Amino acid sequence: MSIFLLAPGKELSPWKKAFHREAPEIPLLTAEDSPQRIAEAKMAVLWQHPSSCWEQLPALQLIASMGAGVDHLLQDPMLPERIPIMRIVDEGLSQYMSSYVLWGILQHHRRASHFAQLQTQQRWNMDTPTHEIRVGVMGVGALGMDVIRKCQALQIPVVGYGNSPRANTDFPYYAAEQLPEFLQAANVLVCLLPLTPKTEGILNATLFEACTPGTYLINVGRGRHLVEEDLLPAIEAGQLSGALLDVFRQEPLPEGHPFWSHPALTLTPHISSVTNPDAAVPQLVENYRRIQKNEPLIHLVSRERGY
Amino acid sequence: MSIFLLAPGKELSPWKKAFHREAPEIPLLTAEDSPQRIAEAKMAVLWQHPSSCWEQLPALQLIASMGAGVDHLLQDPMLPERIPIMRIVDEGLSQYMSSYVLWGILQHHRRASHFAQLQTQQRWNMDTPTHEIRVGVMGVGALGMDVIRKCQALQIPVVGYGNSPRANTDFPYYAAEQLPEFLQAANVLVCLLPLTPKTEGILNATLFEACTPGTYLINVGRGRHLVEEDLLPAIEAGQLSGALLDVFRQEPLPEGHPFWSHPALTLTPHISSVTNPDAAVPQLVENYRRIQKNEPLIHLVSRERGY
Repeated sequence: MSIFLLAPGKELSPWKKAFHREAPEIPLLTAEDSPQRIAEAKMAVLWQHPSSCWEQLPALQLIASMGAGVDHLLQDPMLPERIPIMRIVDEGLSQYMSSYVLWGILQHHRRASHFAQLQTQQRWNMDTPTHEIRVGVMGVGALGMDVIRKCQALQIPVVGYGNSPRANTDFPYYAAEQLPEFLQAANVLVCLLPLTPKTEGILNATLFEACTPGTYLINVGRGRHLVEEDLLPAIEAGQLSGALLDVFRQEPLPEGHPFWSHPALTLTPHISSVTNPDAAVPQLVENYRRIQKNEPLIHLVSRERGY
Repeated sequence: MSIFLLAPGKELSPWKKAFHREAPEIPLLTAEDSPQRIAEAKMAVLWQHPSSCWEQLPALQLIASMGAGVDHLLQDPMLPERIPIMRIVDEGLSQYMSSYVLWGILQHHRRASHFAQLQTQQRWNMDTPTHEIRVGVMGVGALGMDVIRKCQALQIPVVGYGNSPRANTDFPYYAAEQLPEFLQAANVLVCLLPLTPKTEGILNATLFEACTPGTYLINVGRGRHLVEEDLLPAIEAGQLSGALLDVFRQEPLPEGHPFWSHPALTLTPHISSVTNPDAAVPQLVENYRRIQKNEPLIHLVSRERGY
């Protein structure tokens, strides 16, 4: 019995090391192994897999996401039915994500890119007030709530938006059809929504038109939350002042894509939050052993809910 | 009775407006007024004054700093003796300073300059772990403590260093001669010390040699805390990985200064924290009225301690 790891473009060595430390007896396979050996894998740990991988994996008993999100699996029409899917539950993830989002908020607030430009020009100009900010967090799950709590701790005004009503929040909260009011209450938007048919493309021209003029966008959700063609026109029109983007429709973002060189955009290569192999591997090993002992599995995902 | 405002290079109009709102009856004088009128001023509000100003001010009863720091006054050998000195106590200042320092910490933690370089090259490279950080705050007054509290709220490990012993802190605290132990406990140094004869030049080659290799420096204290000639050699030697500097020996930092173009340095033009006239002016007016009524003054500074 073996585990197959497949995550194109991702460095697998930290995962191999973590498996080696945690359970050196488990045979690990990667794309470099022979098709015969791969075909025997009972468990596949995947991230951004090619849809063609399933035919190589006839013996699968468990599909594992390499992270908290499973949209990369569920959106694959070739995903085998009836094989259970698990995700990683990593509490360190929120802290990691929040440090990125707070960096994004503060670099906008304190005008980092303006000062970087002054430095290039060797120009001293103190006459540059901060951007006054009111942060709006879209998506108030574990990640969104952690950002809200940390904004509060830094005395940054913050409001939240989500799909469902919530009572007694200690921050202004807007639900579902209150999106326009939410957008007017904020001038920094942080997208931390799950990717579902409802939220796909939610960051579009219509939403940008309803924004407070000059709103700064931080997208750390998924690339498909954003209608990419609508972003630069909204910046040109002044509805947005700029954006920090960590996720894209196509990753890696292709060379020559207009986002790369736009002065109002700050881009990072999908690193806002990275599942820590040391936290993830014990969960994967646990389910591997449960398969061997025919016990109920942990961290299973509902295909219906989407998470 | 009148108040004289003098702050070369600083925009005075927000200060005048704040005085006008708070106490329109107080006559305000500036360098443009006649020497006769200036000579009658009982109170001077100063920032980076020229040493020659004192002979124009024979009637002074109170010297006020336009900010929290008074080093710009105390370092002047011509400073009149026996006239009391006040400083501004502005709680908004801490929040403002902390947002800058946290930006500095997070941009280092999340490797902002590395990703900015990748973006310029249109290169997608996810293989870039964060810098693991342990923040060391030098100076645990109001500003330093606010940074420490906010690091704690963001789950960033933090230790403190100061001149005097402190009991029962809820963070590791090092005093006076424990500087080497403090430096080994941190890899991001935030200088928020007051500038005194003891702390002038404290950021020097000897201190850098005692640092954890690769330490990142954030200087938001005063330019004269840093021995500028020692900084680039410490970066070349790897003792420091880089620095965020907001203050300099000579301000404006002269064109052509080697700091401007060094890739490991991020510079801002002394904007980390700015005293808000709306917070400061009521304190100045309060002492003006206390002088009139011959009452004890508030926010007085000890010339001996230096703050």
